[in-house]
Amino acid sequence: MSPENAIQAVHAMEWRGSALGLIDQRRLPQEEIWLTCEDVEAVYHAIRDMAVRGAPAIGITAAYGVVLAARQAPTNGWKTSIAEAMDKLGQSRPTAVNLFWALQRMGDVLDEVASAEEAVGRLEQEAIAIHREDEAANRHMGALGRDLMCRDLDGPFEIMTHCNTGSLATGGYGTALGVIRSVWEAGRLQKVFANETRPWLQGARLTAWELSRDGLPVMLNTEGAAGHILRQGNVKWVVVGADRIAANGDVANKIGTYSLAVLARHHGVRFMVVAPRSTVDLSLASGDLIPIEERDASEVRNLGAMPIAPPGIPAYNPVFDVTPAELIDAIVTEEGVIERPDREKMREALSVGRLTSDALKG
Amino acid sequence: MSPENAIQAVHAMEWRGSALGLIDQRRLPQEEIWLTCEDVEAVYHAIRDMAVRGAPAIGITAAYGVVLAARQAPTNGWKTSIAEAMDKLGQSRPTAVNLFWALQRMGDVLDEVASAEEAVGRLEQEAIAIHREDEAANRHMGALGRDLMCRDLDGPFEIMTHCNTGSLATGGYGTALGVIRSVWEAGRLQKVFANETRPWLQGARLTAWELSRDGLPVMLNTEGAAGHILRQGNVKWVVVGADRIAANGDVANKIGTYSLAVLARHHGVRFMVVAPRSTVDLSLASGDLIPIEERDASEVRNLGAMPIAPPGIPAYNPVFDVTPAELIDAIVTEEGVIERPDREKMREALSVGRLTSDALKG
Repeated sequence: MSPENAIQAVHAMEWRGSALGLIDQRRLPQEEIWLTCEDVEAVYHAIRDMAVRGAPAIGITAAYGVVLAARQAPTNGWKTSIAEAMDKLGQSRPTAVNLFWALQRMGDVLDEVASAEEAVGRLEQEAIAIHREDEAANRHMGALGRDLMCRDLDGPFEIMTHCNTGSLATGGYGTALGVIRSVWEAGRLQKVFANETRPWLQGARLTAWELSRDGLPVMLNTEGAAGHILRQGNVKWVVVGADRIAANGDVANKIGTYSLAVLARHHGVRFMVVAPRSTVDLSLASGDLIPIEERDASEVRNLGAMPIAPPGIPAYNPVFDVTPAELIDAIVTEEGVIERPDREKMREALSVGRLTSDALKG
Repeated sequence: MSPENAIQAVHAMEWRGSALGLIDQRRLPQEEIWLTCEDVEAVYHAIRDMAVRGAPAIGITAAYGVVLAARQAPTNGWKTSIAEAMDKLGQSRPTAVNLFWALQRMGDVLDEVASAEEAVGRLEQEAIAIHREDEAANRHMGALGRDLMCRDLDGPFEIMTHCNTGSLATGGYGTALGVIRSVWEAGRLQKVFANETRPWLQGARLTAWELSRDGLPVMLNTEGAAGHILRQGNVKWVVVGADRIAANGDVANKIGTYSLAVLARHHGVRFMVVAPRSTVDLSLASGDLIPIEERDASEVRNLGAMPIAPPGIPAYNPVFDVTPAELIDAIVTEEGVIERPDREKMREALSVGRLTSDALKG
């Protein structure tokens, strides 16, 4: 498929008015199974158990979860009921700042409404807006990232990415994968190396599936091969998403991101982080303050139902790592590009919105 | 189990006089199944299909394969028949220099014998000698590596390792794992992080199994987590084996080794390579000349019989990478320790044996 007629068919979620459809990302690429979430409990479990993943997609999913809670809230105490549902959703994944950002937007709407009926309508509008704004932001970030990448390079080049940051991880198009899509649409993408991303294999299962389905030239690799590939000199950029960005530009993202950033710097390969503005948590002065979720050792010892290590062997399973700002060449949000980020540049570049905090002032 | 009463029960091969027993390392840790190789064909397939792996173990296995060929050689043309078997064994794995070294030792014996009967006896003696010498060399390297690690450190410390370089990869005790065993026996091992080592998962399947069985404190990790772990500052050494070492100290080893070396250097963690003298290939001036075996993409797309990526997706599957000498703090062979290796130090430290070549002189 040529870039000109590339379609972008893959999507993670479908709002159906009285239910939320989610493609079960744990079953991809073997099976395309859609889950139907009819209440907030189902949405909570879908997020916690990683049927849906990717920071922006989690935020959008949670927003629709609030709508479902509003639809089913009792006439007496509807506001308390919706607020409790929001608390529960907030506990589904601890690192995803977009989750809290989306819930805060929904909470702000909830504060303004006077009846259960109004709540349902206004919350649904807001969730759909969050979803549509995310896709639009991704397309804008895609163009910004593409322009930066192409600025200093001639002809087609190779890019490496990690985890899945595409249509499956967002409201559509993707963050880091959105930049890659945009480079592809501009005819400048030679090849994209997709790190398989253990232990959940989002690169192998999701990125390879999504990009090949949309016709992009993807090449899967193990994470151990990343250094060997970067040493060959054809990869000009490593581009990743983010789960949380601190006020000084430190980035928490899927485990393995930090190793890639070190490898990129060692080889003179540039390193780009692409994430919506809602990922920036200005209440965190630096990445050292970002809590790192650790999941069960069994996820490393097993692959799905298949054991790959001795039963009961200790295994370390951090979900995220923190890449310090000094290893990052550019952070791209829908508000612009921050090259060689630090606290000053972050403060200048990002408009002071609802997340303003002491970290920003200090 | 305390270090004092640690036993070392794991082994990869058993010579049974008329057959070679090999533990099928593809089935570990789920099943302990011993293969019985009764002819050189079976040995060839066991090496090629990775029932046995690890550079030293491959060399020893091939030596026993030559004995089996000698036992079954026809009375007329026995020498030609054995030589043909050696050629075939030499084609089983292209990167393993120990294989060629072991076959050369066997070939030198073959050149000296006058009859088929004498060939069987002398070749069997030589194969057993190669096996025993390897285990003795490992114990000596273990002590040398341990002394270097403990020299500048107080109290127990953490070590990270890659792939499997233990009793399963050698004639016994192990190369890099031999150093770790020796540090453990000295009471100085706090913990050993075992990289799972995709795509074959030798770390998860073999190193975790071998070390936990022998009572060492092992912690499994994905390769993506390596940078995050090294950044924490408790790991003081990364120690790996080698498939081939060039005359300038460049090291070819399991894919992922080079990434680890870059990460170690970035974090001020020291990097040690432990390998028998037979791994050094002085005919290679530098690592750039080492051919890198690439295996089928299906090994990345699948885990055993389980698909983990879309069918047919392109995947890059280099088996080895090359770590340049400037990233290596020490190379340990049974002939001694070479700190901060380069061409001069390699030339000085290694006695000029059968592998002398133009690369050494030039």
